[in-house]
Amino acid sequence: MSSDSLEDRGPEELRALRVMTDAIRGVYERYGFEAVETPAIEYTEALGKFLPDSDRPNEGVFSFQDDDEQWMSLRYDLTAPLARYVAANFDQLPKPYRSYRFGNVFRNEKPGPGRFRQFLQFDADTVGSATVAADAEMCMMAADTLEALGIARGDYVIKVNNRKVLDGVMDALEITDPVQKLSVMRSLDKLDKFQWPEVEKLLGAGRKDESGDFTPGAKLSSSQINKLKSLMDAWETVRLRPSNAFGTDVLKKVIGDKVPEILIAGLAELKAIDELVYSSGYGQDRIRVDLSVVRGLEYYTGPVYEAELTFETKDEKGNPVRFGSVGGGGRYDGLIARFRGEAVPATGFSIGVSRLMAALKALKKIDDKPGFGPVVVTIFDKDRVADYQKMVKELRLANIRAELYLGNPKNFGNQLKYADRRNSPVAVIQGGDELANGEVQIKDLIEGKKAAEAIASNTEWRESRSAQLSVSREKLVETVKEVLKRHGIH
Amino acid sequence: MSSDSLEDRGPEELRALRVMTDAIRGVYERYGFEAVETPAIEYTEALGKFLPDSDRPNEGVFSFQDDDEQWMSLRYDLTAPLARYVAANFDQLPKPYRSYRFGNVFRNEKPGPGRFRQFLQFDADTVGSATVAADAEMCMMAADTLEALGIARGDYVIKVNNRKVLDGVMDALEITDPVQKLSVMRSLDKLDKFQWPEVEKLLGAGRKDESGDFTPGAKLSSSQINKLKSLMDAWETVRLRPSNAFGTDVLKKVIGDKVPEILIAGLAELKAIDELVYSSGYGQDRIRVDLSVVRGLEYYTGPVYEAELTFETKDEKGNPVRFGSVGGGGRYDGLIARFRGEAVPATGFSIGVSRLMAALKALKKIDDKPGFGPVVVTIFDKDRVADYQKMVKELRLANIRAELYLGNPKNFGNQLKYADRRNSPVAVIQGGDELANGEVQIKDLIEGKKAAEAIASNTEWRESRSAQLSVSREKLVETVKEVLKRHGIH
Repeated sequence: MSSDSLEDRGPEELRALRVMTDAIRGVYERYGFEAVETPAIEYTEALGKFLPDSDRPNEGVFSFQDDDEQWMSLRYDLTAPLARYVAANFDQLPKPYRSYRFGNVFRNEKPGPGRFRQFLQFDADTVGSATVAADAEMCMMAADTLEALGIARGDYVIKVNNRKVLDGVMDALEITDPVQKLSVMRSLDKLDKFQWPEVEKLLGAGRKDESGDFTPGAKLSSSQINKLKSLMDAWETVRLRPSNAFGTDVLKKVIGDKVPEILIAGLAELKAIDELVYSSGYGQDRIRVDLSVVRGLEYYTGPVYEAELTFETKDEKGNPVRFGSVGGGGRYDGLIARFRGEAVPATGFSIGVSRLMAALKALKKIDDKPGFGPVVVTIFDKDRVADYQKMVKELRLANIRAELYLGNPKNFGNQLKYADRRNSPVAVIQGGDELANGEVQIKDLIEGKKAAEAIASNTEWRESRSAQLSVSREKLVETVKEVLKRHGIH
Repeated sequence: MSSDSLEDRGPEELRALRVMTDAIRGVYERYGFEAVETPAIEYTEALGKFLPDSDRPNEGVFSFQDDDEQWMSLRYDLTAPLARYVAANFDQLPKPYRSYRFGNVFRNEKPGPGRFRQFLQFDADTVGSATVAADAEMCMMAADTLEALGIARGDYVIKVNNRKVLDGVMDALEITDPVQKLSVMRSLDKLDKFQWPEVEKLLGAGRKDESGDFTPGAKLSSSQINKLKSLMDAWETVRLRPSNAFGTDVLKKVIGDKVPEILIAGLAELKAIDELVYSSGYGQDRIRVDLSVVRGLEYYTGPVYEAELTFETKDEKGNPVRFGSVGGGGRYDGLIARFRGEAVPATGFSIGVSRLMAALKALKKIDDKPGFGPVVVTIFDKDRVADYQKMVKELRLANIRAELYLGNPKNFGNQLKYADRRNSPVAVIQGGDELANGEVQIKDLIEGKKAAEAIASNTEWRESRSAQLSVSREKLVETVKEVLKRHGIH
């Protein structure tokens, strides 16, 4: 009955989500990006088959036929729909076209802990720009976004790599089999978790973990592994700015005279990105080149980047772990060409909203505590509902969140329990005596709770303020306002 | 290639949507409702079959199987998922449970003008309250919402009816065939478009319209039609408050001694709603009982209500038409019982977001004009991209929307065209001369446009302010700020 792996979201979660997305939107707008949204459903053909790690075509995608028997699919990311949108509106859009979007995407996967079949992404893309300045901008925007959300410098890093470099390294090592390539890339991807000796096992024969489980390796020869290690070491020097280590000299020392063109081109792009972000004041503590960044999606053609949170948190077993990736992206120059026949360069960044939200909660950077509920006007005399409704109306007109108790009014205690359950600051009561005197009772539930706690803990409690006031009916709104103000609620 | 009947939304539309939904949210929060959101996908079984006007089971619903071959569906409204949510979280929720939600719903329908397969709804529901005070509250909240959106009193009305009254009238007229009942209801539903004589034809043998098309009638006898007319006339007196015409006396005069219990009960509920909204200051100009309100969904069990915009607009042929319904709802006491086995009373109101947006645009109550774009820093010398990027960075740090031109910088004119296309207020230029002098050029594009228009229209134009300034490089941010401030942009 419950939608397992399909999340429901309550008021605290939705408020936190709005605060978070408003902050992201603020940064993206400041960067000149404009909002656009596409529907959740697309024609299957338009979406293409770019889901990572899927062996069957359209595996992982929810698809169905409409009444005209056309195949439609739920979008599995926000990039494929953007490509369709750009192609359909190409002549009307400014070029380069900077845009951002926020919405649900869907995956037909086995649900698991933290794996949902519907989840939120927040994407930004620059379409129609071939320059790596667009990629550099994405990295800077990612860094600014994390800081705008309260993540401190040092608690995150934006790592940049380049598919061309990865391809060039494969060429240099003479790795041509696609399956072996993938296996090498996945091994390198583990460098943020494992030290080199463990990754070396994955590149070679395979690796047995602590539990005894064996992961088959990429079966590289020891000469290939050694070359890769030398490259990685040379790479380390690259990380020191000014970045003079991108030259072919270094490469030739490591891999010999035949340095693949694509490797040289990829390194030049990384150097250009490095210089751009450096000159804009982003140090290597915020944005840095890192050969281990792979990114799963097939459609990347150039720079790829990943936003990683580096602070430690606890895993399920209470062991300290780094928080890890909260987003990433890269350049996908071929995706829009599917529709237009001509290449349209593009680069984009996608935030995994749920993971980022989890991080913000872990860092206590976002408030997900229940807020105060509305003022509850109780029903003492069920024949006088219209009178009580009128009080509610007056409070609402004064812009005070207020409501009439709408349950069965018979048991008055239930009404106060309800107010407590809603975390209401004030209950309003008018019984027969109050009516006769032209009065209402204003119950300060916050003060009342403090009193109850003091009594329960047997400590002395001075009733500095009365938790219950009788005031004349005309002073209802004024008095409620005063109580709310006293508690800092508006 | 384009997703016909599936809408894309650009920046102006999304901004207008946010302004609108924020206003609705504001009213709903003031009424004590709290936010909740459920996923777009549900297990088909959980959604049930409550779509109006569907002859086949699940007609109009997009359904598909997941990897475990379980049937899932895209939600067709926000009420069925709420029922599932409430049932799943029953013990944790405050009761009564007031909540609101905003999201996309999906219909597998033939697309047509204004008919989309994905569209937005904004719903509010009170679950666990059997009292008509909850229905009255919905009507008042609907009225307040329309006014909060800028729709003037007199330009809208909330109409209230009761399924029990409709059922009672059917009983009194001895209409028992479900198909005939539906036909009578649909005829009555036309009373907001047609005068009585035309509706009378629909209730009887049928009606031929101006084009000669014939609509078969409900085949009521003339005695049945006369009784119905008398009821409608008696009804008119009901519309005058204080509502003393709800008594059985009047009914007996019209339909004889055997007044169905359900009719009496339904009328008593309408009277109670009437009194509640009246005592809270809502006149019949805002909320009124109207027998012609039917509402399509099968699951309604009591009061039903509809928000109608009464101002005139033009149809496609330029003829004046009333804008019509922008939302509605009613009581559905049986829906949650499907999951829990016990009756859980509930009432809710749903806004058709697109229709309401169209109304607000027609009334010019919402801004859907393009706003100003970012400041564009142009690239004069492609070897100095890092310098230009640094200017962008400085502007952004000062909270100014700014961007680097990321297209091919070869043709400088294209850069200014791009700035124009983005509706940018300012372009920043630094060529070789400026660089040598330590200066930048600030181009005021708004002033420049005025000048160009003046020249084009041949009117005299005094260059009261220069559209182009050279300032020292350090004064970049300060000067841009001044220009933006002068044009009221922040």
